[in-house]
Amino acid sequence: MPVPLKRTVFFVSDGTGLTAEALGHSLMTQFEDVEFKQIRIPFLDTVDKAQDAVARINAQGEADGMRSIVFTTLVNPELSDIVHQADAFSLSYFESFLAPLEAELGVRSSHTVGRSHGGANSSDYKKRIESINYTLAHDDGITDRDLEEADVILVAVSRCGKTPTSLYLAMQFGLKAANFPLIPEDFDRGRLPGTLEKHRAKLFGLTIQPERLAQIREERRAGSKYASLPNCRFEVAEAEKMMRREGIRWLDSSSKSIEEIATTILQELKLRD
Amino acid sequence: MPVPLKRTVFFVSDGTGLTAEALGHSLMTQFEDVEFKQIRIPFLDTVDKAQDAVARINAQGEADGMRSIVFTTLVNPELSDIVHQADAFSLSYFESFLAPLEAELGVRSSHTVGRSHGGANSSDYKKRIESINYTLAHDDGITDRDLEEADVILVAVSRCGKTPTSLYLAMQFGLKAANFPLIPEDFDRGRLPGTLEKHRAKLFGLTIQPERLAQIREERRAGSKYASLPNCRFEVAEAEKMMRREGIRWLDSSSKSIEEIATTILQELKLRD
Repeated sequence: MPVPLKRTVFFVSDGTGLTAEALGHSLMTQFEDVEFKQIRIPFLDTVDKAQDAVARINAQGEADGMRSIVFTTLVNPELSDIVHQADAFSLSYFESFLAPLEAELGVRSSHTVGRSHGGANSSDYKKRIESINYTLAHDDGITDRDLEEADVILVAVSRCGKTPTSLYLAMQFGLKAANFPLIPEDFDRGRLPGTLEKHRAKLFGLTIQPERLAQIREERRAGSKYASLPNCRFEVAEAEKMMRREGIRWLDSSSKSIEEIATTILQELKLRD
Repeated sequence: MPVPLKRTVFFVSDGTGLTAEALGHSLMTQFEDVEFKQIRIPFLDTVDKAQDAVARINAQGEADGMRSIVFTTLVNPELSDIVHQADAFSLSYFESFLAPLEAELGVRSSHTVGRSHGGANSSDYKKRIESINYTLAHDDGITDRDLEEADVILVAVSRCGKTPTSLYLAMQFGLKAANFPLIPEDFDRGRLPGTLEKHRAKLFGLTIQPERLAQIREERRAGSKYASLPNCRFEVAEAEKMMRREGIRWLDSSSKSIEEIATTILQELKLRD
């Protein structure tokens, strides 16, 4: 097995750097044999900070014996020019895409910094925060109040990923996501929890491979009936039977990330089209 | 005031499309006078889906009387080629950046789809989920158990943004973020909550403009002493006095998004360097 290549990557931004990092990650994941050391330089908003960044990038290159890779989302052209004087391999997001987009739109860009997450006082941002609070207040069936406000209601047996998925839907997309556990009592009754029936259109189910569920539950309650494979098999089979009978859309979360689960839910429930 | 330009934007990806969307948003926010209608086409992983996307993009262009803008993160070159045959203005991240990066690294990219959020079974992903669970279990001072596991402990008076910031730190960065409210009892005692003193190095404070705090609290408990401006002024002044005295780093969250707050905390506590 060859020794992996090692390279240092800088994410440089006049904002949080999260966009530069998202771009960089999506590219870095395409190079499995390369070991990337990542350094973020956010809030680079003065000439002094730009010059400090150049010094830091150059010093790292000398230490590594190989120039660094620099992903930038710098809106300010003056600061961008300074940073790109570093002895590094630079990919400038705005320089590559903003000019062509300006030409296509026929308007100049405003070169405003740090707007990609929405101003903290924008209505979108307020909606996100409200949705996070709503989602926390409606986690794991805590309450069935205000369910008419929910954008989506997740149902699943315990430990399928309802909570992290709900929080991601709220935080990333500003959706009010309630979630309810499906418990043995529901299976005995052979019906959805009563309060959920009138919200059927908002329901989305998660399921999971019983072996994976047993493994996850075992980490929480080792040796319990709750975590036992036979019990997990029973609960998953009953939950899937119920969701099929009730016509609830669902997906298998076994090998999906919360981003993949959340995006699939948006698509299935047409929540953002 | 001129009528805003209207353009339709597609985010097309063989994964979740979240990276394409993040990148697109950072560009779109630079064009305040343009009204963008956004459509996401995720999980585009077959030739059929690519051809459907082309038809949809072209139909939208005809309906708008103006070609659409298409942001793509398509790893598969064959699918990318199909989508870019659409009659649209396309910006392709991988086509723009992958080839130069391959040249710089001297290795071919793996063209693996959907790896930017980490496999659902990767150790990074498990750590994120664990951190979300930890953060939920340590919200608002619910418990002081296992604080030695925390990466960061936020302290602030009620309604400064501790909870959404903690959840964002866990979800985005896989950090275990506990948070504790600073309450009048702490101010009377003139000391930090006892359990926090031995974790001082992990503490980070949030503060807020009293007027903004009163406004936020008023939405929760209209007309209460809790929400009154004099009380908010008192609590904020006492909290800042305490943080100054205890040498706790802090920031004013009044006009910052959770992304900006979280990124600043990472930087101040050097949590990812």
